Amino acid sequence: MTQQEHTHLIEQLQTYIEQKNNAKIVQLLDGLHAADIAEILDDLNFDEALYVIRLLDSDITADIIAELDDDLQEKILNKLTAKEIAEEIEELETDDAADIIAELPEEKKAEVISHIDDKEHAKDIVELLRYDEDTAGGLMGKEFIKVNKNWNVLRSVAEMRKQAENVEKVHTIYVVDDHDRLKGRLSLKKLLTTSTKTPIKEVYNDNIHFVKVTDSADEVARVMQKYDLFVIPVVDEMGTLVGQITIDDVVDYIKEEAEKDYQMAAGISDDVEADDDLLQLIKARLPWLIVALLGGFVSVIVLSGFGNAMNRYGTLFFFTPLIAATAGNVGVQSSAIVVQGLANGTLTGSIWKRLLKEISLSLINGIILAIILMLIGKLLLSEVLTGFDAKMALTVAISLVSVIIMASLIGTFVPLFLHKKGIDPAVATGPFITTSNDIFGIYIFFTIAKLILGF
Amino acid sequence: MTQQEHTHLIEQLQTYIEQKNNAKIVQLLDGLHAADIAEILDDLNFDEALYVIRLLDSDITADIIAELDDDLQEKILNKLTAKEIAEEIEELETDDAADIIAELPEEKKAEVISHIDDKEHAKDIVELLRYDEDTAGGLMGKEFIKVNKNWNVLRSVAEMRKQAENVEKVHTIYVVDDHDRLKGRLSLKKLLTTSTKTPIKEVYNDNIHFVKVTDSADEVARVMQKYDLFVIPVVDEMGTLVGQITIDDVVDYIKEEAEKDYQMAAGISDDVEADDDLLQLIKARLPWLIVALLGGFVSVIVLSGFGNAMNRYGTLFFFTPLIAATAGNVGVQSSAIVVQGLANGTLTGSIWKRLLKEISLSLINGIILAIILMLIGKLLLSEVLTGFDAKMALTVAISLVSVIIMASLIGTFVPLFLHKKGIDPAVATGPFITTSNDIFGIYIFFTIAKLILGF
Repeated sequence: MTQQEHTHLIEQLQTYIEQKNNAKIVQLLDGLHAADIAEILDDLNFDEALYVIRLLDSDITADIIAELDDDLQEKILNKLTAKEIAEEIEELETDDAADIIAELPEEKKAEVISHIDDKEHAKDIVELLRYDEDTAGGLMGKEFIKVNKNWNVLRSVAEMRKQAENVEKVHTIYVVDDHDRLKGRLSLKKLLTTSTKTPIKEVYNDNIHFVKVTDSADEVARVMQKYDLFVIPVVDEMGTLVGQITIDDVVDYIKEEAEKDYQMAAGISDDVEADDDLLQLIKARLPWLIVALLGGFVSVIVLSGFGNAMNRYGTLFFFTPLIAATAGNVGVQSSAIVVQGLANGTLTGSIWKRLLKEISLSLINGIILAIILMLIGKLLLSEVLTGFDAKMALTVAISLVSVIIMASLIGTFVPLFLHKKGIDPAVATGPFITTSNDIFGIYIFFTIAKLILGF
Repeated sequence: MTQQEHTHLIEQLQTYIEQKNNAKIVQLLDGLHAADIAEILDDLNFDEALYVIRLLDSDITADIIAELDDDLQEKILNKLTAKEIAEEIEELETDDAADIIAELPEEKKAEVISHIDDKEHAKDIVELLRYDEDTAGGLMGKEFIKVNKNWNVLRSVAEMRKQAENVEKVHTIYVVDDHDRLKGRLSLKKLLTTSTKTPIKEVYNDNIHFVKVTDSADEVARVMQKYDLFVIPVVDEMGTLVGQITIDDVVDYIKEEAEKDYQMAAGISDDVEADDDLLQLIKARLPWLIVALLGGFVSVIVLSGFGNAMNRYGTLFFFTPLIAATAGNVGVQSSAIVVQGLANGTLTGSIWKRLLKEISLSLINGIILAIILMLIGKLLLSEVLTGFDAKMALTVAISLVSVIIMASLIGTFVPLFLHKKGIDPAVATGPFITTSNDIFGIYIFFTIAKLILGF
């Protein structure tokens, strides 16, 4: 759908809603994918969206609700009764169903679950609710096909037919033992070309990648990406097959995580979008600004401690933003590389080698920048700035190199330290690193200046 | 494989390589996935890695080479003859084959292609080389199954069997017309349950998502994520079915793009990893530092223009890093939200509404920060800082609010402007925004101070 078609459709829909022309509304949305309808509802006002949800059949609205933007989803669910929600839930696969129920208030959760007619479905959902959302258990669904390795092909086909009623699409046929422990997989081709009397244990493939139910979502994403998997089975502590994760849910997870990391690096603490309301945006942005402001006060105090230099070497104070900015930039670069290296597992080798590399790198970058600084200072600034003589140029240049080395070490080792302490190193990127590097940078700058110039 | 197993395996492997104990090497790696062997080779030194590649059969080394880290892959390909590379290429699917050949120097490309025995395979690869790597054409492979809508079921099954020889895994059976134009898809279930005489046109499903060969990789990712697709067919300008994209390649693309955006926001211009060599890291990091340094010089000049304030209002200069840092932080926050909004398509509504929202947001954040600043100033700083009286506190507070509004407007509109001009708005995040906001912030601060305090 093009942007123009989308806009036109929304205008038409709003007209029909106003006229309460239900037949036309249904006709307009007929045949559209749930994800497309969800996008349309996101662009309507709330009462219009609710009107459409109440109008359509629950077999399609269930998928639409699952695809809605979180805020709108929450608002819609608030307006629906427990019985209405249970009807939607009946139509959804267990993983989507559990995601929706997890968002409900505690007392409503139990009520919705008690209204689900299919008790097997309800049991599966309750099981899924136990798992943390950022684990394999939180990503998996209970819809999959399994056969016992002691069955023969004929029985397997019959059992698969029964199981397939609840499964939208069969990706892999899993093979388990009598205790439901995952043993391998069976290719459809093998199943179709083997005589019906053959026991499964003679034809299945025991080479299968799997994850544990407690594995992190990051680990699931890493394994699926590494081996190019579309689905992966999930086992519990006993090796029992308990679920299956499909790559589409992992793609959503990867995208969300990347956005969160990006926002964290930009000093935004909640997961917000440009069209969120003002209060949400303030809540996400203000905390880091306050932290940075407090850091700014420290730099004010550090600078005031060198206030006596102002009479003779006032020019130094013109350079503080340049030094502070360079420290901040170098720190962000170093921390970004380390944070990504930790996430990807590409950060190998000893800590001493890393230290040496980071120092060499910043020494080279620092010297190049210092030369540029002295050249520009000599050619352009010596006329403009009073007191910017060779000695002061050298002072600024030496400080620049020192500050760059310090900033890159802080940028490298703070995330490594946090990671070791079990804290997400991504919090160390962005404003946190910039602010602390500002302070240290300014302190080093004036300390070196004091040593060289003497004040 | 755990980290410990991995380390142990590498040590064993190095011993066997030293002893030239080929039988043991083959035995050690037997049964491992190509992606695991590639990870092991990444941790060997180059000669060892090359030794292993030369030792193993090309049916497994082809996949290993395709999985290698870019740097090592390039080095290994440099050491292999065109004929050796062609042998590897024969074993690969067209998309992986094209990716490898695309990395070769021009003259070697032609030579390798001429050595490929399977001329059909070579032709497919040459076709794929035509497409930009960040388009649907660059992501697709030529391995897929298609049937003509005018065939009957019996003929379709026979033709599919022939085509299936070149296809590792059948995901979807595409239906085309006599001109090879994509018409829809055929479910395996339908194929198996329909009488052999039935023409395909009576049983196929014409509801199918597809992308155009020139569509951007971002668009492919968006469509596949939105509709939870594992594969998507690709058509050319005439609607002819020319390829298929699988989700694993899109997952790799999404991860790489997220890493690039993250690095760009941190002022790193090339796609680098923590274990890249020094020169690569310098090349990736130095350019932005130079740009930021030049920006720093502008701030030096701006500050020196207000140098006459130093005698009476020296305290103002202690606050420049605080003001500059706040401007930088706010700018990065605003630009990150806009850049993500543009990438996700969540940036809806008029530009005036956005302007109003951004101003309200920064006004509220600014006023809260200004109050904190005045409180801390009054309680803690008035003793320490000479000349930090009520008038100066008010000056700094008013400047802070103004600078925050300015910074958020620059952060919002620079990426919007770049996007409109067809430039990737992500370049506007990070050092670029911080540096320009530093300069404007300092200028506004001193201009307001001059107005209020008069110097």
